[in-house]
Amino acid sequence: MLTVNAYAAPSADGDLIPTTIERRDVGPHDVLIEIKYAGICHSDIHTVRGDWGPQQYPLAPGHEIAGIVAEVGTAVTKHSVGDRVGVGCMVNSCGECANCQAGEEQYCLKGNTGTYGAVDRDGTITQGGYSTHVVVTEDFVVTIPEGIALDVAAPLLCAGITTYSPLRHWGAGPGKKVAVVGLGGLGHMAVKLAHAMGAEVSVLSQSLKKQEDGLKLGADYYYATSDETTFTDLAGSFDLIINTVSASIDISSYLQLLSLDGALVNVGAPAEPLPVNAFALIMGRRSFAGSAIGGIRETQEMLDFCAEHNLGAEIEVIPASKINDAYERVLASDVRYRFVIDTSTL
Amino acid sequence: MLTVNAYAAPSADGDLIPTTIERRDVGPHDVLIEIKYAGICHSDIHTVRGDWGPQQYPLAPGHEIAGIVAEVGTAVTKHSVGDRVGVGCMVNSCGECANCQAGEEQYCLKGNTGTYGAVDRDGTITQGGYSTHVVVTEDFVVTIPEGIALDVAAPLLCAGITTYSPLRHWGAGPGKKVAVVGLGGLGHMAVKLAHAMGAEVSVLSQSLKKQEDGLKLGADYYYATSDETTFTDLAGSFDLIINTVSASIDISSYLQLLSLDGALVNVGAPAEPLPVNAFALIMGRRSFAGSAIGGIRETQEMLDFCAEHNLGAEIEVIPASKINDAYERVLASDVRYRFVIDTSTL
Repeated sequence: MLTVNAYAAPSADGDLIPTTIERRDVGPHDVLIEIKYAGICHSDIHTVRGDWGPQQYPLAPGHEIAGIVAEVGTAVTKHSVGDRVGVGCMVNSCGECANCQAGEEQYCLKGNTGTYGAVDRDGTITQGGYSTHVVVTEDFVVTIPEGIALDVAAPLLCAGITTYSPLRHWGAGPGKKVAVVGLGGLGHMAVKLAHAMGAEVSVLSQSLKKQEDGLKLGADYYYATSDETTFTDLAGSFDLIINTVSASIDISSYLQLLSLDGALVNVGAPAEPLPVNAFALIMGRRSFAGSAIGGIRETQEMLDFCAEHNLGAEIEVIPASKINDAYERVLASDVRYRFVIDTSTL
Repeated sequence: MLTVNAYAAPSADGDLIPTTIERRDVGPHDVLIEIKYAGICHSDIHTVRGDWGPQQYPLAPGHEIAGIVAEVGTAVTKHSVGDRVGVGCMVNSCGECANCQAGEEQYCLKGNTGTYGAVDRDGTITQGGYSTHVVVTEDFVVTIPEGIALDVAAPLLCAGITTYSPLRHWGAGPGKKVAVVGLGGLGHMAVKLAHAMGAEVSVLSQSLKKQEDGLKLGADYYYATSDETTFTDLAGSFDLIINTVSASIDISSYLQLLSLDGALVNVGAPAEPLPVNAFALIMGRRSFAGSAIGGIRETQEMLDFCAEHNLGAEIEVIPASKINDAYERVLASDVRYRFVIDTSTL
């Protein structure tokens, strides 16, 4: 057992505090990673605060992990000491169900094992990346190509793959018109990735406040959804809309922006059901769909794609002592576009 | 101008009555059809009763038309006098927009011209198939193959194509598990067609009342949705669910029945929005989609498919004098599975 430094929530309503957590011994198929950077995802906040159900505390969140392999188990073949690696939102799955066999471990029929706050196969509760080290089975560790710095790579493990996967699945590319709803942590990656895939990219944001950023990130167009004419002017325009906004938006209005066979894909979800006008679906054979992160194979593909296109997240690196401030700023949408913890400060 | 016998609604709240209506002279591209049979679709009732908006009266409904070509315009090349032909839910479209050019006239960006109750290009209001004759531009007239009797062919022009199109679009076929929600006019055709396409077919009906019928029509399994265990037992089972029920159903519960990448496709829609749990979409990359009838090319393909597989609708042929009774029985779901008017009785 290894005892390592971490930042963890002691309860649902307390600030995160410096502490130590235990990591299991490195088993035959395990990789010990010295974490260098960990991104702060909005999900971290929801989870530690109990918004998505009760948790066991203390809980160290973090599922955007980038680091260096420090030790490998005797049977490990995929990674070596010194390798630059990443871990995302899951650290295990059954490996046997149809979805796992198809390389879509995120949809494991028995439920994948989340990187933090989940029951691991040994019965312990997983602890995340706000920590100096983590032990993960080699199949859930991906390689970060040389071309990407570790700090800008960390957010790719959640924000990157969560937007890359639906863009690929729904065919973003040359000749396709893609709209991204919301320009936050996920949205800014969706813009970069869709642009790199060759699609024409529009941002649909509440205001034009981040317009300059959006265009720099790769958007061709930028529209304010607070302006009613956006919905009339753009009716029937897009092949694909990636909705990165977790709060309730008026889905039926956005569906009207899709062309024939277009899809509106949610990568986040509000707790309450969303009212959908079925006529908006029928008149254009449109789809309202959802997508969760991506499989391990696709996560590697995404990282390779990012290296090839020289892409990383836009980040603000912070020391661990600023984590609680960062949470408040994430909740206030005051981040461009991802906080990344320098774990050497833990 | 031709004056022909018809059955029409004099107002939103009166019974349909025998009357005469006018048909335009046969233009160069027109086909005059002597109607033999016209199906009664639930939409006819909604429309004449003003449920979907105000109408001009008198209005003769009917968009499941089967008959014989009686005369053709000088420039007509697709049909000849004596041909067995059909007309479905639309009689025209712009022909120039991207969707029309793609053969998806049902999604015409300028709006297709409905077979009844729509403004035709000459400014008159279209009148439907509860009539002895109709004049239609040749591009919106399809050929009914010799293998299908005209009476059982009539409902294929709406109920048939409305279910055939999404089954094809979402890939129903061998190795696919398809569920059909509701065993009515549309549902019974969905079962026959999906079975003929080689899919494994399940019916999801409120009760087991029509189970024997469903299995005879080609369903492999039949489940009662009033039984709560149906939703737990069948979780994650289907690749495609065709929802033929226009009334509100609990979409989120049905989404849970889909396997990875599955789609729930509505072919009808209630007036009020349907609450959708986005988590049910995200956990399985599922889609909630819609589909409207089908294009003319696909309608012909559907008729050819039905002839090849010896398929027609299950019908009860009635004289015109029984139309109002039939309406009451449709509203009471007391029909197995489509009323078809013998227009010789008009």
